[in-house]
Amino acid sequence: MQLHGKNLIGSSLSSLGEAAFRAENPATGEALEPPFCEALPLEVNRAAEMAALAFEERDGQSAEATAALLERIAGQIEALGQPLLERAEAETGLPQGRLKLERERTTGQLRMFAGLVREGSWVDARIDRAQPGRRPIPKPDLRRMLIPIGPVAVFGAGNFPLAFSAAGGDTAAALAAGNPVVFKAHPGHPGTCEMTAAAIQNALAESGFPDDWFSLLQGRGADAGQTLVRHAGIQAVAFTGSLGVGRSLFDAALSRETPIPVYAEMGSINPVFLLPAALAAKGEEIAAGLYASVTLGSGQFCTNPGLVVGLASGELDRLVSALAALFAAGRPCTMLNRNTLDGYSRQAEDLSAKETIELVAHSSPEPDSARTEAAAMLFATGAEAFLADRQMSGELFGPATLVVRCDSEEQMLEVACGLQGQLTATIFAGEGDAPLCHSLRSILEAKAGRLLFGGYPTGVEVCAAMHHGGPYPATTDVRSTSVGTAAIVRFARPICYQDWPQDQLPAELQDKNVRGIWRQIDGVLTKDDVGAGAGRPL
Amino acid sequence: MQLHGKNLIGSSLSSLGEAAFRAENPATGEALEPPFCEALPLEVNRAAEMAALAFEERDGQSAEATAALLERIAGQIEALGQPLLERAEAETGLPQGRLKLERERTTGQLRMFAGLVREGSWVDARIDRAQPGRRPIPKPDLRRMLIPIGPVAVFGAGNFPLAFSAAGGDTAAALAAGNPVVFKAHPGHPGTCEMTAAAIQNALAESGFPDDWFSLLQGRGADAGQTLVRHAGIQAVAFTGSLGVGRSLFDAALSRETPIPVYAEMGSINPVFLLPAALAAKGEEIAAGLYASVTLGSGQFCTNPGLVVGLASGELDRLVSALAALFAAGRPCTMLNRNTLDGYSRQAEDLSAKETIELVAHSSPEPDSARTEAAAMLFATGAEAFLADRQMSGELFGPATLVVRCDSEEQMLEVACGLQGQLTATIFAGEGDAPLCHSLRSILEAKAGRLLFGGYPTGVEVCAAMHHGGPYPATTDVRSTSVGTAAIVRFARPICYQDWPQDQLPAELQDKNVRGIWRQIDGVLTKDDVGAGAGRPL
Repeated sequence: MQLHGKNLIGSSLSSLGEAAFRAENPATGEALEPPFCEALPLEVNRAAEMAALAFEERDGQSAEATAALLERIAGQIEALGQPLLERAEAETGLPQGRLKLERERTTGQLRMFAGLVREGSWVDARIDRAQPGRRPIPKPDLRRMLIPIGPVAVFGAGNFPLAFSAAGGDTAAALAAGNPVVFKAHPGHPGTCEMTAAAIQNALAESGFPDDWFSLLQGRGADAGQTLVRHAGIQAVAFTGSLGVGRSLFDAALSRETPIPVYAEMGSINPVFLLPAALAAKGEEIAAGLYASVTLGSGQFCTNPGLVVGLASGELDRLVSALAALFAAGRPCTMLNRNTLDGYSRQAEDLSAKETIELVAHSSPEPDSARTEAAAMLFATGAEAFLADRQMSGELFGPATLVVRCDSEEQMLEVACGLQGQLTATIFAGEGDAPLCHSLRSILEAKAGRLLFGGYPTGVEVCAAMHHGGPYPATTDVRSTSVGTAAIVRFARPICYQDWPQDQLPAELQDKNVRGIWRQIDGVLTKDDVGAGAGRPL
Repeated sequence: MQLHGKNLIGSSLSSLGEAAFRAENPATGEALEPPFCEALPLEVNRAAEMAALAFEERDGQSAEATAALLERIAGQIEALGQPLLERAEAETGLPQGRLKLERERTTGQLRMFAGLVREGSWVDARIDRAQPGRRPIPKPDLRRMLIPIGPVAVFGAGNFPLAFSAAGGDTAAALAAGNPVVFKAHPGHPGTCEMTAAAIQNALAESGFPDDWFSLLQGRGADAGQTLVRHAGIQAVAFTGSLGVGRSLFDAALSRETPIPVYAEMGSINPVFLLPAALAAKGEEIAAGLYASVTLGSGQFCTNPGLVVGLASGELDRLVSALAALFAAGRPCTMLNRNTLDGYSRQAEDLSAKETIELVAHSSPEPDSARTEAAAMLFATGAEAFLADRQMSGELFGPATLVVRCDSEEQMLEVACGLQGQLTATIFAGEGDAPLCHSLRSILEAKAGRLLFGGYPTGVEVCAAMHHGGPYPATTDVRSTSVGTAAIVRFARPICYQDWPQDQLPAELQDKNVRGIWRQIDGVLTKDDVGAGAGRPL
């Protein structure tokens, strides 16, 4: 597949600007062809306008059509075959095995949402029947359901060229809810995005959707994104990336004349608390598990366990020694791109320079910066120093973790209390740890979106019960998940029809339950038809 | 009941500040005793801190305890008896009959939420069972549900001294979800709020809740509210009132270091579209219905139909004449307070001064401003003038409506397209109106939270299917309702437990469905227990 390097406004290629950039192979430092045109504001606005127009002009898009679209996108991605994985590898340095799994996750998500949409109950239909004779005021017939929110701006993440990118979870959820998507590619993997966007365009054409239902914008700087979220046609924003960029998009979208929901997932240090009995019982096993989790994908996961908290003890020392041996025996990690490497190196240097922090171990040999390599690093500090220095609790995006030694259980609880919002928090507890575990859990419930008992936070299962979100700054919207079926409601809003004739109601709200979905009728969940006839003929 | 005029921080009276204000009886102009102390920032912060502390220290508050609290609040409000209604009448000028109904609505809401909480399925529990043998990666055990979001700041509305006030819908929903509430009283009815707050304090004591679970703050200006929503302990904000105040609270809360959800309901002009056949068939009936809806409660409802749109025709002229006769025969209306009257009068004057607007009719005799009276007014204009002048589509809060005459169906659609977000939109259609009705409805679905067919928007039913919300500027959060059972999720957030031992899971997520609630198990909705054992013993 020949890459064109242009923006895709619907299916139209657009390259009005003169600025262009190339992706770089992090493993070789080689610049990759072709150059990609940075979208001008004109092109960003055009994409948003066309999406808004396509949304306005949609007419009774059926659930089946949406489900089929999602499945066809999955099929088209698979049809891209090996070249997609090769381009993704060249652009990100991620190994083929990982990318294959990520592709499966991506197509799996699309098919999961297809199933959800086809089943149909996600619209949360509620019907309250009229009571014309009620005193003192008659009760009208009321029928409510979720409908699409409108065009969604999706920003691809740097660390998931497939699963959180052009056809990733946010795009899948937004399309599933019935919305068009304007996608801003991450500049780290523009070619992977172009290939995926072409797959989406093919699927739209096969499914009879307007081509403007999906657009792809390329660009390195912040301008295109800022322009996009400020466009009046955009009704929601989904982003995965850094706190700085996420917050700036959030601020821009919320200061619009008409503010809109922004779902920015901005990372986390994912604290892991090791309680004494667990540490005593299986410290070595935990060390191995932690090392694997910290260095998985070169540590470039938002669920990377960047903080390990334990009570100062011989057992903790042994765990640190075991971890140190693993870090020292490990090789340097290839980072996604130079930006990620630079950010990691700078922050790691800052930490290393602190008198209160010890760099316990690091991988060897020296990382080769021409190959975008970083050292995996194990830091340690005391709880007092940690509590006094907010910088230590910031996210260090890469293959590193910081062990915090606490002098007492109270101090451990204090460390937990001082944490900012997190995607995940983990407790390892064994027999005898129950009281501390209970106290800790109460604190962490207010801090994190997902609480793990004795596990490792990397690996975010895609399913109904997943919650991938959390209090700020993990995300900008504590109410919402970016992974799993519940993500669909991010891109939907309720509407209520009062006293409408049957034949003008959406299928989901008619007396006869033609879609066979779960509905609340007079407050009771059922798949039954509405008993008494309601609504009047036009 | 002797009013003290102080702030209530939990059950402690607080009056640190020197500034005080009195409520005024709008019907007489008389200042009412006692003076009410304006809360100082110190007191606001103290209330928020105590709520945050009480929330942190809660330990396994049961659904039954919450349900009982809500029911006891309802009982305590009823126990206040006639004095509550008298004080509310004195402070707002609303008649006893209306206030009685409003009290029923208020206690009804509290009991509705008690029922919802007791039933328990609102937590949207989802369980995905572990698959330890899955390849290539084992699936963990994941269990997700909604939990309380944390302390909620609630701002009372001026036009509902009971149902959208201290123990109104937002307070009920916030408490139902398991949160403490810091309530900022509307300065129009501080005494009514004090009485209600005392009822809530009694109920808290009866139910074994900490008194800091609810605080009451008094004040006229914007300062207390701004301080409150900026306090780090506050996790969500609910407001009903004007666009100006709502937006300023929204901006303050969203520009915090840790932004929080803000549910501001800020009004609407609630357009009513009269299609030709409906107008021909029952123009007079519609005129009577519209007049009643426009002047209900002196027009002081956020669902007041402030815009009537029709095709210029003899039928529309006849409707305007019929409406004019009703307005001319009506008496002036007592407004809630001087502020509301002044705002209405100023805006009505601005409209009257426009060359493009006709003041068709108004009530008589001249309103008595010493009795806070306003004239009910009927305005008319052409669609062209309406489309050219954005001021005409702003909310005029009071007993007035504006009829817009369109020259063509296209122009009617253009008027619809030009509207901002609305709480409601209404279409009257008869035989032969179907194509126009269909086009109009497609447009209005994007504009409003509730679409009525042939009815009047005032009267917002409290039930599961109600959606009282809508696109900005009707509200700041298009995803959310302030009326009905769905309002509970405003004040909740999901959490996911991964691989937790059974005995440490919340009741809602244990294998045995002890609460008897609806849950998604492996994606399937059921009330069954989880089949296979999951989770490990500690």
